Amino acid sequence: MSRLPMAFHRSVPEGDNRERRVCDHCDFVDYENPRVVVGCVPEFEGRILLCRRAIEPRRGYWTLPAGFMETGESTAQGAAREAEEEALAKVEIGPLLTLFEVPHVSQVHVFYRATLREPLFGAGHETLEARLFPWDEIPWDEIAFESVAHALWAWREGEGLVHHRP
Amino acid sequence: MSRLPMAFHRSVPEGDNRERRVCDHCDFVDYENPRVVVGCVPEFEGRILLCRRAIEPRRGYWTLPAGFMETGESTAQGAAREAEEEALAKVEIGPLLTLFEVPHVSQVHVFYRATLREPLFGAGHETLEARLFPWDEIPWDEIAFESVAHALWAWREGEGLVHHRP
Repeated sequence: MSRLPMAFHRSVPEGDNRERRVCDHCDFVDYENPRVVVGCVPEFEGRILLCRRAIEPRRGYWTLPAGFMETGESTAQGAAREAEEEALAKVEIGPLLTLFEVPHVSQVHVFYRATLREPLFGAGHETLEARLFPWDEIPWDEIAFESVAHALWAWREGEGLVHHRP
Repeated sequence: MSRLPMAFHRSVPEGDNRERRVCDHCDFVDYENPRVVVGCVPEFEGRILLCRRAIEPRRGYWTLPAGFMETGESTAQGAAREAEEEALAKVEIGPLLTLFEVPHVSQVHVFYRATLREPLFGAGHETLEARLFPWDEIPWDEIAFESVAHALWAWREGEGLVHHRP
């Protein structure tokens, strides 16, 4: 079957009150929703597991295991799944740590405290290397994202949920 | 231009690791994301503003003003927008109240405390009527959703963020 070029225009669907992406070929409306990023701060005996990114954006920088929440899972399940995918680590998810909002890219980042039962981890497909860092050796100048630095500080300060409200 | 019927199949896109909805006609991949519902508990002099739903699901039942977060806004901005759309009410959004997860429908509900500066409100397009209820008169048997009842109780108990973690 020959494929059509993917093409969209913007218009207000019937019964709606704002412009959406509508397919040029059929009646599909692409309701673009904000996306939820779920992650955790995995601890093992006081050290924190960070991953060096193998992909853009911020390739080569250090991050916490985190990624887009998938349908059908809870935020905690998503955070555990991301730790397994990115750091090959089985974590036990603890309490909510931060809610960090990034409205200009339509993202809400949710981070949990987490523990590694054993110091077993590795580099998933999106990771160059994974490593346990003592607090004093965290490479602050090479942290990939502001929400990651924010989660690390919230972990350190330990005052329950911290909401970064823009 | 003649329109094609909207049609999707499920397959794993290149570089991905799970099945997605892919268009039968072009290369569009519909990455279905969990959706964030944002709402608030609007208070005026100890009473709470509820809306009777004009739309399905749960038409005729009472709810708090809430709806899907839109791109480009924060959860608090979305909660204020929904109060204006559904209850024609200008609210001042306060602290986070609840995070209620409903993974089987891929939703995360975020509710805030909020205050009405003046007792001005009305019925938006999705609302049959809006009314201020003293706590003792809240129609518990006619509350539309579990997350709404949960937010009302969290408002009453006043213990900071309550996370409903399935």
